Amino acid sequence: MEGDVRIDIVPGSQYRILQNKRKFSYGIDAIILSDFAQARGLVMDLGTGTGIIPIRLADGKDIKKIYGVEIQGDVAELAKESVKLNKLEEKIQILNMDLKDLRDRFSKASFDTIISNPPYMKTGSAILNEEENFALSRHEIACSFEDIISVSDYLLKPLGKIYLVHRPNRLVDILSTMRQYRIEPKYIRFVQPRWDKKPNLVLIEGVKGGRADLKFHDPLIVYDENGNYLDEIYEIYGMDR
Amino acid sequence: MEGDVRIDIVPGSQYRILQNKRKFSYGIDAIILSDFAQARGLVMDLGTGTGIIPIRLADGKDIKKIYGVEIQGDVAELAKESVKLNKLEEKIQILNMDLKDLRDRFSKASFDTIISNPPYMKTGSAILNEEENFALSRHEIACSFEDIISVSDYLLKPLGKIYLVHRPNRLVDILSTMRQYRIEPKYIRFVQPRWDKKPNLVLIEGVKGGRADLKFHDPLIVYDENGNYLDEIYEIYGMDR
Repeated sequence: MEGDVRIDIVPGSQYRILQNKRKFSYGIDAIILSDFAQARGLVMDLGTGTGIIPIRLADGKDIKKIYGVEIQGDVAELAKESVKLNKLEEKIQILNMDLKDLRDRFSKASFDTIISNPPYMKTGSAILNEEENFALSRHEIACSFEDIISVSDYLLKPLGKIYLVHRPNRLVDILSTMRQYRIEPKYIRFVQPRWDKKPNLVLIEGVKGGRADLKFHDPLIVYDENGNYLDEIYEIYGMDR
Repeated sequence: MEGDVRIDIVPGSQYRILQNKRKFSYGIDAIILSDFAQARGLVMDLGTGTGIIPIRLADGKDIKKIYGVEIQGDVAELAKESVKLNKLEEKIQILNMDLKDLRDRFSKASFDTIISNPPYMKTGSAILNEEENFALSRHEIACSFEDIISVSDYLLKPLGKIYLVHRPNRLVDILSTMRQYRIEPKYIRFVQPRWDKKPNLVLIEGVKGGRADLKFHDPLIVYDENGNYLDEIYEIYGMDR
């Protein structure tokens, strides 16, 4: 472990997580997504990063096992250390591989739940001058959104569920691609920084082979007008006001 | 004119409109849509109903002419009467025809702006026990959403714009179909009954042949917590508080 690595509390859980603030750390997106996801059975987290989502979900009583796949070697290594630190080796397995190769490792239609907090930016949509780890996590360099949906289509059982967080400006790509792969979007929840501001994140639940029947949740508002967290954010983070 | 017909004020304008409360009248949707639409040049309103949208937009200074197409004979007749009542015959023409036949009447790529407040319900998605006029206006009996986008693709000039209002639960159909016809969704604005409630309407701006680049507007909130209209609704309706 390098000197930049530190141990943080996993919000809303009894667990701890190793993060490298200079190179890789999770965001509010991952916390909100793990709260949104009704994970059960065999679970796959595509692009797990530090492993924050598997660790935060580890106590879920309907969950059999959680796999977290991460292409970046040093980030996957950190996630594996965090799993060990929490003695969760029986519940969580981190795989350091390209998610496009999951087809060679798992049988078709073997997973109940897929979760992903994928890179938000389309390749070529911004200058890539960040450190490589940041770039791979934020830009669709190692995999496109379609890669994620395509491998989910392979991995999910019929009526298995996928939970995603993404940027609202990718909504056309997201909904079109999901429908194309017959993973029907079932629920959308927008995350707004304030009640009167446009959304900056979108949470999506899809069902493999589900029929067209989209519903919305009430929006998740993050801050009040004074810049303080609203109650639901405190609840998601497991904090007292 | 039958006894059920009455003359109402067109909100936010100097004009009046004939409505038949028993058979057909416009909703808040049409008012919000006409406010959202930045109509210019040659304008087509697909499924114009009472003609509320053309009449409300008639004073737009960048508008050359507005066509409103309506398949229902008696509704189109009422719209024509309203156009005469306001002496807008030079600016507005109501066409009593099937919008699918517009290809035979107008040249390809001849319109700058298309507006539509289409039927919201998929055929077969609910029991059709209402009067025929209500049914045609609310259910996709006479035309599907794809018909509307397909004829818009024909009518719109390159980079011409379409403005739609619809139900959020049709969002996957809407965005997928628009992209399929290369009418790229550019702006989305959700309409919420309250700040903390899920949207019940969605406003969409699309650009023919535009590149993928979706943006959101801040949500339009209709009521405050006491059930009173918020300021923006008063402005849209041209009312003083």
